[in-house]
Amino acid sequence: MTIISKSIQIRSKGENDMLDLTEQISEFIGSSGISNGIVTIFVSGSTGSITTIEFEPGLVKDFPEMLSRIAPKDLDYGHEQMWHDGNGHSHVKASLVGPSLTVPFSNGEMLLGTWQQIVFLELDTRARTRNLVLHIIGE
Amino acid sequence: MTIISKSIQIRSKGENDMLDLTEQISEFIGSSGISNGIVTIFVSGSTGSITTIEFEPGLVKDFPEMLSRIAPKDLDYGHEQMWHDGNGHSHVKASLVGPSLTVPFSNGEMLLGTWQQIVFLELDTRARTRNLVLHIIGE
Amino acid sequence: MTIISKSIQIRSKGENDMLDLTEQISEFIGSSGISNGIVTIFVSGSTGSITTIEFEPGLVKDFPEMLSRIAPKDLDYGHEQMWHDGNGHSHVKASLVGPSLTVPFSNGEMLLGTWQQIVFLELDTRARTRNLVLHIIGE
Repeated sequence: MTIISKSIQIRSKGENDMLDLTEQISEFIGSSGISNGIVTIFVSGSTGSITTIEFEPGLVKDFPEMLSRIAPKDLDYGHEQMWHDGNGHSHVKASLVGPSLTVPFSNGEMLLGTWQQIVFLELDTRARTRNLVLHIIGE
Repeated sequence: MTIISKSIQIRSKGENDMLDLTEQISEFIGSSGISNGIVTIFVSGSTGSITTIEFEPGLVKDFPEMLSRIAPKDLDYGHEQMWHDGNGHSHVKASLVGPSLTVPFSNGEMLLGTWQQIVFLELDTRARTRNLVLHIIGE
Repeated sequence: MTIISKSIQIRSKGENDMLDLTEQISEFIGSSGISNGIVTIFVSGSTGSITTIEFEPGLVKDFPEMLSRIAPKDLDYGHEQMWHDGNGHSHVKASLVGPSLTVPFSNGEMLLGTWQQIVFLELDTRARTRNLVLHIIGE
């Protein structure tokens, strides 16, 4: 049994930018020499999220729009009253979707569906450099 | 330390069908001979989800209804404009609830609450055969 | 590779009480002697949730308010019709946020962002004693 962990940086282009991480994670698993196990993808930060989605231009728009219906930007957030940084809605959306995803893999391949990609979603109000952790346990 | 992984197929009856997986997962842990560890349950697919809930007829209806308030079927989805398969709402709900759940177990028993079951929720618009992965790491 | 697991009890003060677990989890990792791995935090129960958030007084109010917009207390829940315990909204919110979180750590430190804490959110309608599991796999 082996543990291999890697910190990566990605750059988002601004609020609601969705980035497909699937290939990068697949390559990390491939280069690890580990054939069966789990990979955990984690965002170090409280205004970004990880999930899976069919990564195509329609849903890249639909998923953030759904989150904006739940947590509109123009509500009166307690976070705004305290910190005046204009991203109360970003925080509550990120906590709802969550910062962590664990995916099993077998024979060096993640067991994703055909139309299922692993994505990072930028929920903060500006372009940001993001620290992610890719963590494998396996054999 | 041992890894044991199993692919299973389940059959949903249609949109919003919720299936209790708890017993099947418990039996898999029991038969593995592993006494302490974690089990990850993962849906290979982008229109189904895994979570825990008290599996009783009221909530089996309430949870999908809450998701339909967040993502009504009759909105104008970008996914629909691209693919015309009528399941834009299915995708965004599945990405929100998430495809992966990790549960610790001890002495061969998952550490669930008394009224807490592990469920698959079908969010696609039709009955489907689903591939799930049950992945155990433990000793 | 080692597994160490611990059950802890926490006490919530009532509905929407949010408790910062970060220090307690950090200390558990520190005392384990394990330097690299993952920690899974799991709530045994169907009306409480685990996520990460910037733990400050504004968001402590904003996050539960967002959940109450999604699942207002005064809707007609099937759970209520069956059980008359007044917490249908608690259950659906808990299933949405989720009971489980996995966080990687390195050199004995969780790889959280600076403003990112691990929290338990009480979603039931009263103060409760809660059983949580902290489960480490690492080396």
